[in-house]
Order: sequence, then C-alpha cells, then structure tokens
Amino acid sequence: MRAVIPFDTRDPKSRLSPVLEPEERESFAEAMLADVLAALEPGDLDPEVVATTDPDFLVPAPVTVDERPLDAVVDAAIEAGTPVAVVMADLPLIGPAHITKLRNTPGDVVFAPGRGGGTNAMIVRDDAFHVDYHGVSIQDHRDIAHEAGLTVGEVDSFRFATDIDDPEDLVEVLVHGSRRAANWLREAGFEVTVVDGEPRISRD
Amino acid sequence: MRAVIPFDTRDPKSRLSPVLEPEERESFAEAMLADVLAALEPGDLDPEVVATTDPDFLVPAPVTVDERPLDAVVDAAIEAGTPVAVVMADLPLIGPAHITKLRNTPGDVVFAPGRGGGTNAMIVRDDAFHVDYHGVSIQDHRDIAHEAGLTVGEVDSFRFATDIDDPEDLVEVLVHGSRRAANWLREAGFEVTVVDGEPRISRD
Repeated sequence: MRAVIPFDTRDPKSRLSPVLEPEERESFAEAMLADVLAALEPGDLDPEVVATTDPDFLVPAPVTVDERPLDAVVDAAIEAGTPVAVVMADLPLIGPAHITKLRNTPGDVVFAPGRGGGTNAMIVRDDAFHVDYHGVSIQDHRDIAHEAGLTVGEVDSFRFATDIDDPEDLVEVLVHGSRRAANWLREAGFEVTVVDGEPRISRD
Repeated sequence: MRAVIPFDTRDPKSRLSPVLEPEERESFAEAMLADVLAALEPGDLDPEVVATTDPDFLVPAPVTVDERPLDAVVDAAIEAGTPVAVVMADLPLIGPAHITKLRNTPGDVVFAPGRGGGTNAMIVRDDAFHVDYHGVSIQDHRDIAHEAGLTVGEVDSFRFATDIDDPEDLVEVLVHGSRRAANWLREAGFEVTVVDGEPRISRD
C-alpha cells in the first residue's frame, strides 16, 4: 500500500517561532519526518513524501514535489489508487505499532483524529472519498464519508493525536518521545519544568 | 476491583471560568462524573467516589468524603488494598471499552497518560507504589514504579488523555463526545466554530 506523507518545506512549523529559530524549525521538522518514516518503514508500505518544494536535506524515502494545497495533493493520491494511507509529517510519537493499528482497523476509511478536531492519519480504501483538511477536519471527513455511503473506522491513540504545532506540544515530545525529534529537542537544551504546577518547556 | 474516582467539589473546574458560571461549572463537572461512572459501571468494578466535601447532587455510586489532598487520598486507597483503579472524574470521552483496555494491560502498575504530562487513570496491582500528582506526574509515576522495581504498562488512548480543564478542551468534548457532558454543552448552546482556520468554541 502506498503511504503519502505531505511535507510543507515553506516556513515549516511557523507556530514554533517563539521558541525556535527558522533554521531550527527546519531541522526539527526534518527530525519529525524521519520519525514518521521510521514508523512506516518496517511494514510493506511504500512511503512517498509529497513536498511543496524540493527538500534541501536527504529524505529517506521517495520524494515528489507538488506545490498545490494539501487537499489537492491528497485527493490526487486517492484518485491515483486505493487503498492509500495518508500520514502527517509532524507525529514524532508514533511507531510501527501505531501504523499497524491503523491498518488493522476496519472501515472504507479509517481516521486517526488529532487534537483540536484534526485528522492526523487516515487509510482510504474507497476512492469515493475526498478530503477537506480545513477547519474541524475530523467532522468534515466523517460527514464526507457518510454522504458517500462509506463505513468509517477510528483509531483512539494519544500518540496519533499528538501533532506538533505549538510550543506547548513540545512537552509531549519530551515526556513521551524517545526517537529523533525527542533527541533533537534534548540536544538543543530543552527540558520540561514545572511552573505553578503546570509543565512548561524551558531551554538551558 | 475497587475503582476510586477523586472528585473535588470545591470551585470545580475553575479554569473553565472564562466560559462557564460557577453553577454551570458544578453542573458540568457532575455530568463528566456521570460519564466516568457509566464507563465503569458495566464491569465488575466497585466504583467509589472520594469527594472533598459532600456533593449536593445525587451521585450514582457510593461516596466517601475525604478533604485531604489528592495524593493522600489515592495513597490511602492503595494502602487499603490492591488491585485498585484510580480514574479522574473529568474524562467525558471514555467508555467501558477504555476501562477494559486499562484492565487488560499487563504491569504492576498501568498508566493512562494525560495531555500535558498528567496521569488520567491507573491500575495499581502492587502496594509498593505511591502517587505524586504534582508537576509532570506521568514521569514521576514512571520513576516511582521503577525505583520500587515494579513493571509499568501504559495505555495509548486519546480519549483517556483528554481531561477537561481549559476552554479549548471543550472542543474535544463537542467533536468526539456523545454522552452526558457533550449533551450538557450542546444544550447550553456551545458549538465549535472555525476562526482563522482554528477550531474555537462559541455559545449562542
């Protein structure tokens, strides 16, 4: 099965700007992508990174450049043939077991919800489906599937749900991560400290 | 097995003050507690709500009043006998399947991590364990278990990880919930709207 990993090379992870310099954000996004590809690698999946521009680092998977918006890229991947998996590039807490869980879940479409109404991964087994990542995408994706008469499976996973967008999300990587992105943060001096009883990231 | 559900009746869910009046917070906390008790009910668990003061509503489970801090309450529950489950009262997205998943996970102690470094549920099967809910409790709980030579299991669940503290957490209840707390919010006029591409709660 093909596995498409959309990857935006343009100003990646801009919401991490308060805590990371532009070059650091690029490097951290690369580390997260490597973690996602490592989660896909052990199976019989064919990962394909679809990047908005040619990445200026070595990607350990085939790369296609497609500057269209996310919805168009994913819809084209569905039209090119099902089943197809779509996995976001900013999920540094997933491992091979999570991809297996996604694949073992029945449904014409299977979603792994993200925090805040997102859809962090999916498997599309019927090309009557199309995507809409704007807004509360998990609700839109459920609605699109139901209107097309498709069955829906969902995977309940904290690690799938944890996409990394904001500085507070880095707490999750440090507390639960053990691979490249987590190591990147630790080597960059980040740690979790407790301020007024709440965990916060700090940097030495 | 006993299942202890600590419940703070004093100024419940204070961080929801920006969007809920004090009486509403009490009523919403009651709805979340009912959802948690419904998740526990179908099994052979004996739920026991440990409240800081006598609740002024009918709790569908035995209630003990204990005004001590959370750590002391849970440590007393462990000392009273293992195995014992400890489940937070603000997890309106869990159902019986999640409790089953927790029970079926091997380990002297089993944790269900919460977002932000929390520990939203646990099963303690060895009384050499004790709790420390302050700060990054999941890390502290892993450390306490390891220092006591205990094996640790963890449950990867978005629904277990989603405790409801802040207004933005209500998005999750509206998007993924279907029981009392979700209905409470809908009947109170809350809905999810998209502002600048981000989901936000609004109230009509």
